[in-house]
Amino acid sequence: VDTRFGHLHALRTIRDEGDVVIVIDQTQLPHRLIERRLTCLEDAAEAIRAMQVRGAPLIGAAAAYGVALALRRDAGDASLERALATLAATRPTAVNLHWAIARMRERLAPVPPAGRAHTALNEARALCAEGAATNHAIGEHGLALIEALVRSKRRRVNVMTHCNAGWLATVAYGTALAPVYAAQASGIETHVLVSETRPRNQGLLTAWELRQAGVPHTLVADNAAGYLMRQGAVDLVIVGADRIAANGDAANKVGTYLKALAAQDNGVPFYVAAPGSTIDWECPEGDAIPIENRSGDELRSIVGLDSRGRPARVQLAPGDTGVDNPAFDVTPARLITGMICERGTLPPNALRAAFEPVAPMHG
Amino acid sequence: VDTRFGHLHALRTIRDEGDVVIVIDQTQLPHRLIERRLTCLEDAAEAIRAMQVRGAPLIGAAAAYGVALALRRDAGDASLERALATLAATRPTAVNLHWAIARMRERLAPVPPAGRAHTALNEARALCAEGAATNHAIGEHGLALIEALVRSKRRRVNVMTHCNAGWLATVAYGTALAPVYAAQASGIETHVLVSETRPRNQGLLTAWELRQAGVPHTLVADNAAGYLMRQGAVDLVIVGADRIAANGDAANKVGTYLKALAAQDNGVPFYVAAPGSTIDWECPEGDAIPIENRSGDELRSIVGLDSRGRPARVQLAPGDTGVDNPAFDVTPARLITGMICERGTLPPNALRAAFEPVAPMHG
Repeated sequence: VDTRFGHLHALRTIRDEGDVVIVIDQTQLPHRLIERRLTCLEDAAEAIRAMQVRGAPLIGAAAAYGVALALRRDAGDASLERALATLAATRPTAVNLHWAIARMRERLAPVPPAGRAHTALNEARALCAEGAATNHAIGEHGLALIEALVRSKRRRVNVMTHCNAGWLATVAYGTALAPVYAAQASGIETHVLVSETRPRNQGLLTAWELRQAGVPHTLVADNAAGYLMRQGAVDLVIVGADRIAANGDAANKVGTYLKALAAQDNGVPFYVAAPGSTIDWECPEGDAIPIENRSGDELRSIVGLDSRGRPARVQLAPGDTGVDNPAFDVTPARLITGMICERGTLPPNALRAAFEPVAPMHG
Repeated sequence: VDTRFGHLHALRTIRDEGDVVIVIDQTQLPHRLIERRLTCLEDAAEAIRAMQVRGAPLIGAAAAYGVALALRRDAGDASLERALATLAATRPTAVNLHWAIARMRERLAPVPPAGRAHTALNEARALCAEGAATNHAIGEHGLALIEALVRSKRRRVNVMTHCNAGWLATVAYGTALAPVYAAQASGIETHVLVSETRPRNQGLLTAWELRQAGVPHTLVADNAAGYLMRQGAVDLVIVGADRIAANGDAANKVGTYLKALAAQDNGVPFYVAAPGSTIDWECPEGDAIPIENRSGDELRSIVGLDSRGRPARVQLAPGDTGVDNPAFDVTPARLITGMICERGTLPPNALRAAFEPVAPMHG
């Protein structure tokens, strides 16, 4: 059942009513605001696969809820393992998915089947609440960077971002946009340069949520990032991450690496904002991060609103056009000024000292 | 009057029937192949402004023909100057436009008005013929680079390009694609990585013309360029140019600079293919090149084919979304491996020695 909303303030990216998990269908945004009701494991897995829920932190939350939905029907060991495996196979790059799955396994395996469904729901809720708190902390640490720039530039700060690492990509606040929202809450106005983010145009999600929040922003083509930095139009870049290797190399939406190169060439600070759960200690460096390749149809056709305001798909290139469509790229740690995490803003090579002892999920 | 074509082999990007100049309306490609008949100065100026004709060399040819059309009606000094000024104001960045206008002025000013229309038509035809010969030479010089790569790699060479600097952007052969076509004529198969080139998607023009020519190619998002280079999927980059400063800095379609940065970071050779008429000796460096800013509607909406195969525009972002849309950027000479010109492949700092003495159009 789809539901249409007139009032945004009641919305959350993910919430539950016990036996139903309710998400915003992000494939319909910015054209339509529609919720989807997930009632079983396959609903949750398909929502992640089809990118109805997207953004590394939100994928993790949806996977946790997916386990809870699966266990409502059958809480035996086989069902639990099947749920964990099904969810783990949905998307390859974002490690928060695997982090959430590992956390659910660790929490649920020792619980007798009769108590698992209840425990799983509580754990999914806890994971969401912690995610919100984590992102709030990221916002506060990022705010300090923005405040310092406001003091030195004595004018409004221009933040460039890529893809959507805002409220929509997380349970709350966002990662890359959390500092922008924290600034707004402190009465500091920023201006966000939103790159379109082809081929799935998640920049339009970012523009949509910034508009809802009343944050000034400007949409630009991905191609314009270098020119704008060279013109001095960008004070800092903040992006999210889908997986950070132990050495600080960061996988994020394809095109991030190009922005990092342009930032370095123009002396613009380049930050990655992500929770500690994005770090994969088993990946020694970026080249070990699996990169998802998605359907060429993402470039061959596109959905917009037709002249009557209805969503309509149009074909941009013939259906048999050969396409290569990697969804992520890796930004080497050498191009990253700092990681904005819940424990502060750290140089990429300080992640291990800050996080590893207390987050040994993968070893 | 629009004309639809079934047979491509009879097509040229620009040709004349004496009193009419016929161009392909490139705003309709790749969806429809339609010609436009230009009969007066304003037709020609509007075709350039609206990008029905586009690509620096083709804009120059269209401007030359525009002068010829203007003089058919009134060949007096005032009419000539008005035509030159109208055409010069159509688009700011491509210097070939100004080069063609200067050439027409130089050729026509000494001619008595009675003979000007005839002279202008002949000069426009000569400029087109020379453009074709120039691009043929660019193809031969670029072919040598491809042959060397085939010898060292012992496999098919992968060429990445940006925007459309092919046959469609010129009178014939193209600039960046001329080496690819020269390779094909020599029996050497290349594979072209075609970047989409947002916001106007001229990469789809490149894919269309490569398909017509039977050249293997793959469409990729602009954002994917860095990832693909890092994966070793690109052997060399060849792009065109709209204006080259005296120091070798090159303005080209926005996003070119990002590709050049990625090429440097991955040790991929980066070439700019352009005729000598693209060099502006009055621009000491890239920062002096005027960069066109185009309508934000280029990002807010897009034309594709609807489910019945008819061209249809869909809205991607609300009409009041703020957009910044620079159409070009500047790649510093330090990032350019070589300039493939009609006089050979030259390091950027060798342009002056190769060209200036014989092309003192601007000083």
